[in-house]
Order: sequence, then structure tokens, then C-alpha cells
Amino acid sequence: ARQGVAECVYAPGKRTGHITAIVAELLDRSDGPVLVTRVEAEPARTVLAAHPGGSHDPAARLLAWRPAPPDGFRLAILTAGTADEPVAAEAAAVARAVGLEVTLFRDVGVAGLHRLLDCAEEVAAHDAVVVVAGMEGALASVVGGLVACPVVAVPVSTGYGAGLDGVTALLAMLSSCAAGLTVVNIDSGFGAAMAAHRLAMAVRSRRGPG
Amino acid sequence: ARQGVAECVYAPGKRTGHITAIVAELLDRSDGPVLVTRVEAEPARTVLAAHPGGSHDPAARLLAWRPAPPDGFRLAILTAGTADEPVAAEAAAVARAVGLEVTLFRDVGVAGLHRLLDCAEEVAAHDAVVVVAGMEGALASVVGGLVACPVVAVPVSTGYGAGLDGVTALLAMLSSCAAGLTVVNIDSGFGAAMAAHRLAMAVRSRRGPG
Amino acid sequence: ARQGVAECVYAPGKRTGHITAIVAELLDRSDGPVLVTRVEAEPARTVLAAHPGGSHDPAARLLAWRPAPPDGFRLAILTAGTADEPVAAEAAAVARAVGLEVTLFRDVGVAGLHRLLDCAEEVAAHDAVVVVAGMEGALASVVGGLVACPVVAVPVSTGYGAGLDGVTALLAMLSSCAAGLTVVNIDSGFGAAMAAHRLAMAVRSRRGPG
Amino acid sequence: ARQGVAECVYAPGKRTGHITAIVAELLDRSDGPVLVTRVEAEPARTVLAAHPGGSHDPAARLLAWRPAPPDGFRLAILTAGTADEPVAAEAAAVARAVGLEVTLFRDVGVAGLHRLLDCAEEVAAHDAVVVVAGMEGALASVVGGLVACPVVAVPVSTGYGAGLDGVTALLAMLSSCAAGLTVVNIDSGFGAAMAAHRLAMAVRSRRGPG
Amino acid sequence: ARQGVAECVYAPGKRTGHITAIVAELLDRSDGPVLVTRVEAEPARTVLAAHPGGSHDPAARLLAWRPAPPDGFRLAILTAGTADEPVAAEAAAVARAVGLEVTLFRDVGVAGLHRLLDCAEEVAAHDAVVVVAGMEGALASVVGGLVACPVVAVPVSTGYGAGLDGVTALLAMLSSCAAGLTVVNIDSGFGAAMAAHRLAMAVRSRRGPG
Amino acid sequence: ARQGVAECVYAPGKRTGHITAIVAELLDRSDGPVLVTRVEAEPARTVLAAHPGGSHDPAARLLAWRPAPPDGFRLAILTAGTADEPVAAEAAAVARAVGLEVTLFRDVGVAGLHRLLDCAEEVAAHDAVVVVAGMEGALASVVGGLVACPVVAVPVSTGYGAGLDGVTALLAMLSSCAAGLTVVNIDSGFGAAMAAHRLAMAVRSRRGPG
Amino acid sequence: ARQGVAECVYAPGKRTGHITAIVAELLDRSDGPVLVTRVEAEPARTVLAAHPGGSHDPAARLLAWRPAPPDGFRLAILTAGTADEPVAAEAAAVARAVGLEVTLFRDVGVAGLHRLLDCAEEVAAHDAVVVVAGMEGALASVVGGLVACPVVAVPVSTGYGAGLDGVTALLAMLSSCAAGLTVVNIDSGFGAAMAAHRLAMAVRSRRGPG
Amino acid sequence: ARQGVAECVYAPGKRTGHITAIVAELLDRSDGPVLVTRVEAEPARTVLAAHPGGSHDPAARLLAWRPAPPDGFRLAILTAGTADEPVAAEAAAVARAVGLEVTLFRDVGVAGLHRLLDCAEEVAAHDAVVVVAGMEGALASVVGGLVACPVVAVPVSTGYGAGLDGVTALLAMLSSCAAGLTVVNIDSGFGAAMAAHRLAMAVRSRRGPG
Ligand SMILES: Nc1ncnc2c1ncn2[C@@H]1O[C@H](COP(=O)(O)O)[C@@H](O)[C@H]1O
Ligand SMILES: Nc1ncnc2c1ncn2[C@@H]1O[C@H](COP(=O)(O)O)[C@@H](O)[C@H]1O
Ligand SMILES: Nc1ncnc2c1ncn2[C@@H]1O[C@H](COP(=O)(O)O)[C@@H](O)[C@H]1O
Ligand SMILES: Nc1ncnc2c1ncn2[C@@H]1O[C@H](COP(=O)(O)O)[C@@H](O)[C@H]1O
Ligand SMILES: [Mg+2]
Ligand SMILES: [Mg+2]
Ligand SMILES: [Mg+2]
Ligand SMILES: [Mg+2]
Ligand SMILES: [Mg+2]
Ligand SMILES: [Mg+2]
Ligand SMILES: [Mg+2]
Ligand SMILES: [Mg+2]
Repeated sequence: ARQGVAECVYAPGKRTGHITAIVAELLDRSDGPVLVTRVEAEPARTVLAAHPGGSHDPAARLLAWRPAPPDGFRLAILTAGTADEPVAAEAAAVARAVGLEVTLFRDVGVAGLHRLLDCAEEVAAHDAVVVVAGMEGALASVVGGLVACPVVAVPVSTGYGAGLDGVTALLAMLSSCAAGLTVVNIDSGFGAAMAAHRLAMAVRSRRGPG
Repeated sequence: ARQGVAECVYAPGKRTGHITAIVAELLDRSDGPVLVTRVEAEPARTVLAAHPGGSHDPAARLLAWRPAPPDGFRLAILTAGTADEPVAAEAAAVARAVGLEVTLFRDVGVAGLHRLLDCAEEVAAHDAVVVVAGMEGALASVVGGLVACPVVAVPVSTGYGAGLDGVTALLAMLSSCAAGLTVVNIDSGFGAAMAAHRLAMAVRSRRGPG
Repeated sequence: ARQGVAECVYAPGKRTGHITAIVAELLDRSDGPVLVTRVEAEPARTVLAAHPGGSHDPAARLLAWRPAPPDGFRLAILTAGTADEPVAAEAAAVARAVGLEVTLFRDVGVAGLHRLLDCAEEVAAHDAVVVVAGMEGALASVVGGLVACPVVAVPVSTGYGAGLDGVTALLAMLSSCAAGLTVVNIDSGFGAAMAAHRLAMAVRSRRGPG
Repeated sequence: ARQGVAECVYAPGKRTGHITAIVAELLDRSDGPVLVTRVEAEPARTVLAAHPGGSHDPAARLLAWRPAPPDGFRLAILTAGTADEPVAAEAAAVARAVGLEVTLFRDVGVAGLHRLLDCAEEVAAHDAVVVVAGMEGALASVVGGLVACPVVAVPVSTGYGAGLDGVTALLAMLSSCAAGLTVVNIDSGFGAAMAAHRLAMAVRSRRGPG
Repeated sequence: ARQGVAECVYAPGKRTGHITAIVAELLDRSDGPVLVTRVEAEPARTVLAAHPGGSHDPAARLLAWRPAPPDGFRLAILTAGTADEPVAAEAAAVARAVGLEVTLFRDVGVAGLHRLLDCAEEVAAHDAVVVVAGMEGALASVVGGLVACPVVAVPVSTGYGAGLDGVTALLAMLSSCAAGLTVVNIDSGFGAAMAAHRLAMAVRSRRGPG
Repeated sequence: ARQGVAECVYAPGKRTGHITAIVAELLDRSDGPVLVTRVEAEPARTVLAAHPGGSHDPAARLLAWRPAPPDGFRLAILTAGTADEPVAAEAAAVARAVGLEVTLFRDVGVAGLHRLLDCAEEVAAHDAVVVVAGMEGALASVVGGLVACPVVAVPVSTGYGAGLDGVTALLAMLSSCAAGLTVVNIDSGFGAAMAAHRLAMAVRSRRGPG
Repeated sequence: ARQGVAECVYAPGKRTGHITAIVAELLDRSDGPVLVTRVEAEPARTVLAAHPGGSHDPAARLLAWRPAPPDGFRLAILTAGTADEPVAAEAAAVARAVGLEVTLFRDVGVAGLHRLLDCAEEVAAHDAVVVVAGMEGALASVVGGLVACPVVAVPVSTGYGAGLDGVTALLAMLSSCAAGLTVVNIDSGFGAAMAAHRLAMAVRSRRGPG
Repeated sequence: ARQGVAECVYAPGKRTGHITAIVAELLDRSDGPVLVTRVEAEPARTVLAAHPGGSHDPAARLLAWRPAPPDGFRLAILTAGTADEPVAAEAAAVARAVGLEVTLFRDVGVAGLHRLLDCAEEVAAHDAVVVVAGMEGALASVVGGLVACPVVAVPVSTGYGAGLDGVTALLAMLSSCAAGLTVVNIDSGFGAAMAAHRLAMAVRSRRGPG
């Protein structure tokens, strides 16, 4: 693997025995973090029995071994509403497993602007921001206008009708009037965390060994 | 025609002579406002020559005869940015022709939230709000959360790529997390103004003859 | 919350305990109506046990506390056919909970025009109309041409094939040849009722204290 | 060719010389009607110079030789509005060229229901009905409920935004709540006329030689 | 109801008791056929217990009372393959209930052209043809070229991937190079049969009282 | 480049000077065929002036230098109608430039099945078949059932409405009921010819040096 | 059936008894391979009991009788990741049943390019290549650039969000910058194997009787 | 404006006089870079005459005043082919105007993998990478697997047919199997550069005042 990048397995479609075997190989191959995403409690127990020392976060559906130590990169993760929680949980758990320091700002959707404005300054003090939002995804645009740091938007598939299972939020975020937003796949808390992980590595490599 | 509703003609696809003939008939049939939408300066001149007493607004591309007198219904029209101007101009001109009192709030898009917050109270003092916005259409959600009166959202087709010629803004506005927003067709400043016209008639009929 | 607007919770995706906690907070925060939408009978019972004094409407799947007293705004809700009933039920229950006076006109779809024409005058005597229709949504256009007051169209997702889960009705309603119709999200009886609620507040604020 | 079916050429994409050659061949091959659709005045003149005895209808953009004599099949063609005229003109011209007796009912769109109801009985006296309508295409559903004979719906591509260049009308007509409507391609006045031609042949073959 | 048209109820979404009540009303209102489509064996039994004298066709999922006597209109129904059977069964059962004489030609898809060519002459001897086909729907085009009578194409939703749940067959049939085909909604055997019913009524009314 | 594969340049978006420079480089790099696709007569003349010895086929819009000698691979190219000609011309010219022996079978669309059946045996005697067809693309399915050799289908973008600029033909060909068809991009005569080129190389490499 | 082509049945939607009957007929009709695709273990057992001598491959969900003897055509099948396994298994089993020699190269997706480059030469030594890949389908483009022989790409439907159930991979493969790729339907391991079967027959027929 | 962020104007749809006025205001408001994107040579000259000291890059269609001094952030911009040049030019010009150090790697598309592998190490030495690619956008996935730093993918709208004006590349990039890629709007060289600008600010703020 590329130097420093966590090893990740996507569980859906893999039998538990197969996951156990892949994890064995990845734990051997490097000495960095090994993650399995989208894995429920029961198969997690089986895999952990074979490879003790890891842990499973049920809200995030994440299995992780050898999480990286925090290295000072501060990531803010914002959700618009309750429906965005599971995706934000995946983003937070993966980000922590690769060594980021995560603060969650929940339920700060734009229909109630005051909650967002109340925490805007605190959010802006982070190194990067992940915005998790469904329906029309407007939160990403507003946050993009409030902070100068990198903003990664994650569209969420919950909602109904014209929300088109997250496609509307995806298109809206890509069309955002806030310059320099970037977007990952629908419901991909994993993708947002890995994008932040790439940012943190860039920052770290520029900071030097110190 | 239903009592009190303006008579409206959609010009695209009609020859100028045909428009002139329809206007003649409509001026005859009632004594309320007669409007022709989406008509450029040159055909407008020809039709006005045949039916003097009307006027043409080139930004709105609207021809109007016998505009209704202002009846006290205050409509706020907001645009997110420059691209929304022609649609807002159509909405404003039609609204005025049917007797509404229009205030325009321009360039209050969410990427620069302060301009919007600065006028929020003034906007909230109106009877209804039309929000004209393209790209991701986030302005509608934010306004919907700031005011309690009826909000009609108009998606705008400008932009590129993932904006899908206004379809993204349309879907986003329909999926808005702000409760009770309603939406009209892409670029339909006319539709928004007519929706406001219906509101004004409802208000007026409740106010009684006074 | 904005003065006079009901507090609303969207139940899907929230655990019952979470709903109970949010309702507690909302009952505390204001003294207006508190609503929970899309909630089935069983979780409703649990929440009502914790917060007595509310009621659950199973057809509408609505939990409501402290419904507003009727304030004289007359809302007509029309359905095209049987498939539209659950959405109309949500619209009616929410509308009543926020103080509107609702009359239901059922099964007046355009394939049997006489039923609709028979009640057209009665419908036109209301302050606003909500049209609930699936398949091709033609009822909204016909009603829009029969009445002069505000018309909010709700596309319904039932049907098959070319109905595209309500997207066809949605697009048809947005493209309606009847001027000034507005549209809300697919199956959003809630959205239509809240749009009517905004109308009622506009009417009331114009009527003055009396 | 199948017995009795007119020979038809679609002009777009063919050079005028090529059209002239095909017409020569078709005039030779049978002795029934020969049609060229979607052909403008100028190339039409060139082809007619080579094959005199035909005629060009500029509104319909149709070239026709040896039109069939009227055989008593009465076709009603309805349009919702002005934008539907060119498609209805093509349908009428092709239908007449294959021997049908056409009556046009123009501008009977559902937003002004009275014009339609005024002619409903007259329409119902025909052998078949073609409904030409764009935007939301609601006219087809209403007519389908008013008459018992075959109804062929033609969606029209004019309009903007959510009309999606006729796709919305197409989907709406296919989803119609009026049982037994059939639909042809967007803007295909030709297709509707040929469908009526097939109907007329079925009727004629049942009527016997008389 | 319009003179002679069967009364039809669409069962999905209706409770059994509701269906029973509607059937009661329809049996009362006219003395022609009464049909309930898309109804499974169990609710059918309940409704039949209340209204004896009808029958249920489980393959067609159709309940019918007072089927019309055969009146000599010969309808051919073709299927491309096994997947098209349930839709063809609905078309056949509805068509017979309204008095048409139905011949089924099964499994004559175009990938094995000889089976189709072997029966082409027999098919062409009918008054109208219904083509039921999924996947790419090519059978409709080929049949449209082989027969001169009315052809109604029914796209079928089975298949996978690029078949897009019948949308591909629908679009293909609408774009057919065979002139005068008409199309009904995806999987709507009912719609095709009702279109044939309209044809039969047109033929009958022309034939005179005899 | 991979051994034996022709070098190809796609002209659209490249300035003529740029094309000339690329061709210089490609003529130098190998000694096989060098092709420029989608190039009109005028820029072709300029490029040929700089690199004599090539030739331009205006119907195919192809510039070619050093065409490969025919090596005995027989490719049949079929078109459904006139609209498919330009795409078939590109396929034929590219195929010949890379050494294939091409026979064109024109205007054998399925609405007139006899022309196709008349040449079916001759087509089946080829090593591979390219089917070029627009609208509903049914020709590919029929041919796929008539021949046992490789069939490459090319959807064509001409047509209107439900043809969706070739997307309908594309989806229909991918959903074909004829097993083992393969498909290339819309209008890509080039892609079909290059696919045949790959086939010819496979055949040749198996035939051995002889 | 065309000479030498295997007889194939698609099981979904067919009752087990129906499958048994069709297999009986096909085993009778020719003496080549008879295949039933997409059939699970249980119905397979029933059909095999009636027609002994066949075998069922559960990973491929394939029933096969009288597999063709290997005839020297070497097919490489590549997968990008674990999710592509079931589709590759179907492709491999069908290909072997029709006499091809299959080598599987698993998990050579482009995000880890070295695994692919390590086997590139070995892959290039085959007569044809099938690439099975989901998500963005990039593997097909890279392989298309590495080998000169025929490449058939199979898009896979697994994944989520912007993958659109395989439509994204399908469109990406059709738009590939690698010239001469061909594509089959989403998840159609069967289609890819049959395309390779057609290739093998073309090669064989050119090789002569030897 | 947020501290340190460049001021940017999107020219399409704005009259030249309007652009001149906005630039005046922006030059006044801050002392950082002022940019106008998507502006052709002629209007650029007019605006520059009013505000000397800026410069216009015609390939990038960018007007810029007061470009930021290079601050050591190294950005690699890769293109797959010629069609991607204009978008890459915009990305490069905007990135340089906001102080990034840009290296362009052109024409390194995956169909010719060796050119990409030859520069992979050099690319990996940058702080961030922008990948500009159309058609199937596979380059982004391959690069994402080769480098550990942040990768921003820009889909390009050129191409035809299944490329769907860049939508295919967009969806493919969002579905990429390479973890942590982020995506901006179709053709948005600007968006990618601004995303890199946000990265650079994050790096700089962590590096401290030095
Ligand atoms: N939740 C996730 N969403 C998208 N990709 C993931 C996820 N988890 C792991 N991956 C990626 O999936 C790939 C591994 O897939 P596989 O080889 O099928 O196990 C790696 O490229 C991971 O970066
Ligand atoms: N049935 C519904 N459909 C759409 N939005 C709803 C519905 N019920 C409540 N809401 C909105 O959902 C938001 C509350 O979401 P939450 O915080 O997740 O409960 C409020 O903005 C409500 O207006
Ligand atoms: N299978 C069916 N598909 C589509 N429409 C149907 C079907 N069966 C009945 N209908 C129509 O549905 C309408 C009756 O709907 P409802 O009043 O909900 O029973 C009538 O217009 C029928 O023509
Ligand atoms: N008509 C065409 N359609 C699609 N791709 C083409 C065409 N002509 C050439 N190409 C491909 O375009 C690529 C060359 O692109 P470029 O470097 O921009 O000239 C090569 O991969 C060719 O195989
Ligand atoms: Mg949200
Ligand atoms: Mg905007
Ligand atoms: Mg309806
Ligand atoms: Mg219309
Ligand atoms: Mg079929
Ligand atoms: Mg064709
Ligand atoms: Mg893949
Ligand atoms: Mg590319």
C-alpha cells in the first residue's frame, strides 16, 4: 500500500470467513490501521474472535484494528438532521481510526439557521469540515460560505420523492454556489473520512518531522 | 374567465399577427389586465401599434394592458445572484401588472449569508415571498426557515454540468427541509407571480369589500 | 421557532425514545401545536404514554398535541382516486392540527368529469385548495382552471410503469397549463398542509386583530 | 407493401435528390398514396418539379401524391393550445392523404374546460379521436373519459423546464387514469394519423366490400 | 358511464371490504361487465362470496361479473417469451370479459424469427393485434411491419440492467420504425385490452345494428 | 502502441495545426495505418497538404494514411435506414483502413422484413457483422438471431422524441433477447470497426503465419 | 437453432416444471450444449432428477448438459474486486460449457495497479478478454489499452449511490477511451460468455476443419 | 469575505458593464486576488481598460488582478487527453492566481498507461493532484491508487453518446474504487482550483506564520 494509507475492506457481499482471511493478510502486510466498513454486530464478533485487539463501532458499522494515534488534525463533522446520523457516525469512526481529531456538530440544518450560526466560529477553527446532509443538501453551501478551510460534502439518501435517494442532494452539492466545495458518493461517510485522511497526510508532510 | 383573474398569453411559437388578434379578443372579453409573456421588443412594438395603451418591459419581456391598481398586497422577490435577474424581472413585472406591490432583494445568495441576514426582517414584513435561485437553490430553504408567510420558490436554469438546466434546483427546492415551501416550473417568474396573485385574491376576499 | 408556526418532527429513522425526548423539548419550548408525522400506531402509543394529552390519527399517521383552534380558514382537499387517500389524510390531519377548517372531496378524478363538475362551485368557495393526485396528475390542471384561489398540488407515488413512483405526476403538475399552481414534494400531504398554514397566517395577519 | 397501406418517406437527413429517387420508386411500386413527411417548402418544390401531380402542405410539412379518396372514417383531432398546431397539422394532412375525414377542434385545453365541454358531444360522434397536447398533457385524460371510441394521444415537445421537451406529456399520457388510451411518439402527428389509418382499415375490412 | 364501456376497479391499495362495496355499486349502476384488476385469489374469494355469479382468473388476477357476449371482434395477442405471460393473461382475460374473441400466439420473439413467420398470416387475419414484449421490445416493430391492422404494444418490466424495469421496451416501442403502432403503459395488459375494446366499439358502431 | 493496432486521432476539439503535428508523430512512431476520425473536408485538405499520401473520405469524415492490405476478414455492415448511413460510412472506412473486407447491406430495417430475409444467408457467410440502427434498434436483435458469428451493434442518434438521441437504441440493444450481441457507443462507427479489427487480429493470430 | 450455437434458457419467472419441459425439448432438438441460467440449487435438483447427466454450478447458478469439448479458444476473465465474483462465475461457467478454455484473474482493480500490471502479459496471451467490473468500471479502459485482442466489458450492479445499480459502469464502459471495447448488459456474465462463444466460432470457422 | 479567500466573479450572463462595476467594488473591498472566470477576449479588453493592472488568459478565459505570490503549495494537474485542455487551463490559471505552484501533466490517459506510469513518481511528489478527464473518467481512479495526497477529480463534458455531456464521467468519479477521491462539478476547473486553494490555506495555517 501507499505509505501511511490505512487498509480498508468493504464488507457487503463478502462472506465472514472471507473477511477474516483478508484481515489476516492486511494485518500482516503493514503495521498501520486496518478497517472493515459496513459490517454488522454479528459478523463483527466472528472476525474479532479470530483477530483480537480490534473493536467494532455498531453505529458506524466499523471494525478497526491498530487505530492511528491522534496527530493534531482537527476535523469538524456537521449533520443537518437526525437522518444524517448513521453516515456521520461512519465518517467520524473512520476519521478517528486514521488519527484525526473529530468534533461532531449535530442537527445544524439550514431551516433553523440560528443553531448553525451559533457554532460557526467554532467550526471555522478546524482544519477541515465534513458536511453530511440529505434532502436538498443546502447545509453544504451555507457552510462553504462560512469557513475558508476544505469542505467535503456527503449527500445522504434518506428522504422521499424528489430527493431521489440522495441524487438530489448530490447534484445540489456539486452545483453549490460556494466555491471549492468537493463532494463524495451518496452516504459515503467512509469516502469523506478518507478524503480528510489525505488532507491530513498533506498537512503532516508539509509540517515536517517535528 | 374566472372573476378577477388576469388574461395571459404565452408568446413563443405564436406569429405576431396571431398575438395581435388574441389580444384584441381579450381586451374585448373582460376589462381586467391583459398580459403577453416572453415577447421581445420588436414584435412588442407591432402589437402595441395595433393596441395602444399597453406597455412593454424589455427585461421582463412582458406586454401589459390595463394593469390592476395596487391593492396593498406586499410581495418580496429575492434573487440569489445575477443569473436569476431575468426570471425575477418577469415575476416582478407580472406581479405588478396584477396589482401587487413588489420589493426586490437582489443578490442575497447563501454563499454570502450576511447580506441575507441583513434584510431578513424587512423580507419577513411582506405578505408573501418569491425566491428565485439557480444552481443548488439553497436560498429557498434558508428563507423558508426565516419567514412564516407563504414562500414560492422558482428554480432557475442557468449554470452548467450537475445543475442540469435547472432540474437540480427544482428537485432541491421540492426536497427542502423548510416546511410548507411550494415550487413552480423552472424559470417561471410568471408562475410565481400568478401564484402570488392567487394569494392576494384569497387575502382580499377575506378582507371583505372595504 | 418563528411566531405561530407549528413544531413538526419527521418520525422515520428516529427511535421511539428519541421522538419522546424531542416532543418533550418542543412542548416546553413553545405553547403552540406539536406534531410528529409518519408515525405508526405502536410507537405512537409509547410516545403518548409519556406525553398524555395528544392524539394519534392512524390513517394520517400523525401524532398531535395542542391542536390550534379553528380560525376560519377554509381548505378544500381533493383526491382523484382511492390511491390518493393516505396522502390526503395526512394533509387533512396536519391542516386541522394547525387550525384550518378542512373539507374533503374524494374520488373526483378527471376520467369521470361529472363528479368534479358537480362539486366545483362548492370547492371554489374555499380559501385555498389542495389537489392530491397520482398517475398523470391531470386533476390539478383542471381544478386550477376552475377556481381562482391558491391551489397546491401534491403528486402521489402509487401507480406503476410510466408513473415513475410519482415523478410523472410531479413533472406534469409543474408543467400545468393552469397558471399559478404550486407544487410540493411527492406524497407530501404534510408539505401541502404547511403551505396552507402559511397562507392562513398571511390571511390572518392581514385581517388584523379582530 | 402490405395491401392498402400508404408508402411514407421521412425526409430529415435525406438529400433532395435522394428523396426524388425514392419517390420515383414508390410511385412505380404501387398505385396508392405516397407521402414525404417533414419536408420544407424549398426541397418540396424541387421534388414536385420532378414528380408533378403531388402537393405540399407547408403547415404540415407534408408532400403527398395520389391521396386516397375519403372513405367515411371520421377522425376528430383536438389541440390543447397554439403550441400544438404544427403537430396537429401534420396529423390532419397525413390522415386526409390516406382517406380519413378530419375535423379539427382547436384550443380546447383543460385550463378552460368550457370550450371542451361545449364540443364534447360533437367530438364523441367521430370514429376515433387524436389528442395533441404538450406541457402536462391532461387533455388526453379528460377526453378519454368523455368518449368511448379509440383515443390516440400525441405528446408535444414545446414548453420549458419540467416539460422536459415532451417527455413529461408522454409519461403523463401513458399513466392516464382514462382506460384504453394509446400513445405515440412525441410530436408524431404522423404516427397518430397512421394509427388512425390502421383503425380505418380495420373498420373497412369488417364492413365488407360495400 | 359512457354507453357500453365496462366498469373497472384497480384493486391494489384498496381494502377487500372497499372493493366489495364498489363492486356492489357498479353492479347496480349499469348492467354491463364489471371488472376488478390485479386481485389475488384470497381477496377474490371474499368479494365473490358477497357478489356471487362472477369468476376469478388467477393467472390474469382478474375478477369479472357479467362478461359481455362475444361480438365477433378477433384480437390476436402475441408474447415474445415466458416473462410476458402474466401481462398477456391480463390482456386476454379483460378482452374476453368485454366481448372480444382472443387468440394467443406465445413465445414468438424475434431472436427465433421462424416461429413468428410461421404464424404471421394467421395473425394478420385478426382485427387487431396486441404485442406483449419486454427487454428491447423488438417484436412490436416486426409485427407492425407484417400486419396492416391496429397494433397495440405493451412493454413488459421483467429483465434486468439496461432493461430499466420496462422503460427501455417502452421507449423502443414508441420509437418504432413501424408506422402507426400505439403504446400503453408498462405491464398494462388491462390498458391494451381496453384499447382493443374501444376499437371493437368503433367497428361495431360502424357496422350498424345488424 | 500495441503490436498491429492502428493509430487513431479524434479530431473534434483539436486545431488543424495540432492534428497535423500529431499525425507527423504517429507516422514516425510506427509503420502501420494512421487515422483521423470526424474530420471535415477543409481541415482534411490542410493536413493532407502537410502529409501527402493519405486520403480523405468525406462521407466517413475519415483521414487515413498507409491503409493495411486486405487480409481476408469479411465484415458485413448492415443499416436499418437512411439515417444510419453516415455512421455506417465511418465504420466501413475505418474497417477498410485497418485491412478488413467490407460488404454493405443497406436499408434492411425490420419494418420491411423481406429485404433482410433476402440477404440473410449472404450476411451469415461473413466473419462478423456490424448492425447500425437508430430509433428502437430492433434490427440488431433480429440479425443476432439469424447469424452465429460475432455481432457488434451501433446505436444511432437520429430520430426524435422517445428516441432520446440514441439512448433508446443503446438500451434496447443492450437488452436484446439475442444472446451474445455486444454494443458500442452511440454513433460510434469507429468503435464498431475497431472492435472488428480486434476480432480480425484474434482470427489472424490463430490462423498462424500462413 | 443456428448451427453450433448452444441452447439457453433463462430461469427467472419460469416454474420448475416449465423449465423441465423446455429442457426435455432442447435435449431432443439438437445434440449440442443445453444451458439454464440463473437457477438456484433447489429447483436445479428437481430438473436434474428429470434429466440426469447434467450438472449445476451453484456459484454461477448454471445448469448445463452436454458441455462442448474444449476447442482451444483461450478466454481470460478479469474481475476488479470481490463484488464482481458472481458475475464472473456465470461468465466462466457458460464459457466452459460452450467449449472455451477459461483463465480467471481476480481482484485486479485499478486502485491497486500493480496486481494488474503483474499479469498483463499473461492476459494478453489469450484470444479474448472479458472484464467484469462495477462502480466506475475503469478496469475495462485500462485493459483495453494493454491488450490488442477483443475485449468484452461487463458492468456490475453492486455498489451504492452514484453507481446507480450498474448504470454508471455501463455508461463508463461505453464511453471508454480505449478503442474497440464492446459492452454487454449489466451483470450479464452470460452475455459476455456468449459473445466470446461467437468469437470462438468465427475463429474456428476460419481455421478450417483441422 | 472570509480572510484570505480570493474574490471571484462568474461572467456568463453578465453584461460587460456590470462586470466592470463588480470588479471595481471587489478591488476596493479587499486587497487580495480578484478573478473573473469564463470571460472571452473581447469583453476582457473592455474590463481591463477600466481596471488596468490585471491580465487575461485566453485559454483559461480568466481575468485576474493582484495574483497572490506563490506560497510553496505544489499542485499537479493531469489531463487524460486533448479534450480536457480548456478545463485544465482554467484550473491552472485560477490556481496560480491564488498562489499555488502548478505543474501540468498532459495527455496521460489510461488507454496508454505507460505515459502515466512514467510520471507517477513526479506527480506523487506534489501536495495535491487535480485530475481532469472526460468520457469514462478512469484516470481519476488510477491516479487515486497511485498517490496518497488529496485528489480532486474534474469530469469533462466533451465526447458523445453515452458520455452524456460529462454526467458519465461525474458518476464514475463519484463511484471510484480509489478511496478518498473528491469530485467537483462537470468542467469546473475553477472549482478544482478553489478546492486546492482551501487545501493550501489549511496547510499554511498549520505551518504557522513562518
Ligand atoms: N464504505 C466504503 N465505501 C466505498 N468504498 C469502500 C468502503 N469501504 C472500503 N472501500 C473501498 O473498497 C475497496 C476494497 O474493496 P474490496 O477489494 O472489494 O474489498 C478499497 O478500495 C476501499 O478503499
Ligand atoms: N412528513 C414530512 N415530510 C417532510 N418533512 C417533514 C415531515 N414531517 C416533518 N417534516 C420536517 O422535518 C423537519 C424535522 O426534521 P427532524 O429534525 O429530523 O425531525 C422539520 O423541518 C419539519 O418541518
Ligand atoms: N390494471 C389497471 N391498470 C391501470 N388502470 C386500471 C387498471 N385497472 C383499472 N384501472 C383504472 O383505474 C380506474 C379505477 O381506479 P379506482 O377508482 O382507484 O378503482 C379506472 O379508471 C380504471 O380504468
Ligand atoms: N470517432 C471516435 N470515437 C471515439 N473515440 C475515438 C474516435 N476516434 C479516435 N478515438 C479514440 O480517441 C483517442 C485519441 O484521442 P486523442 O488523443 O484526443 O486524439 C484514441 O483512444 C482513439 O482510439
Ligand atoms: Mg438536509
Ligand atoms: Mg443560486
Ligand atoms: Mg390521478
Ligand atoms: Mg397542453
Ligand atoms: Mg422481448
Ligand atoms: Mg432503426
Ligand atoms: Mg470496479
Ligand atoms: Mg478521459
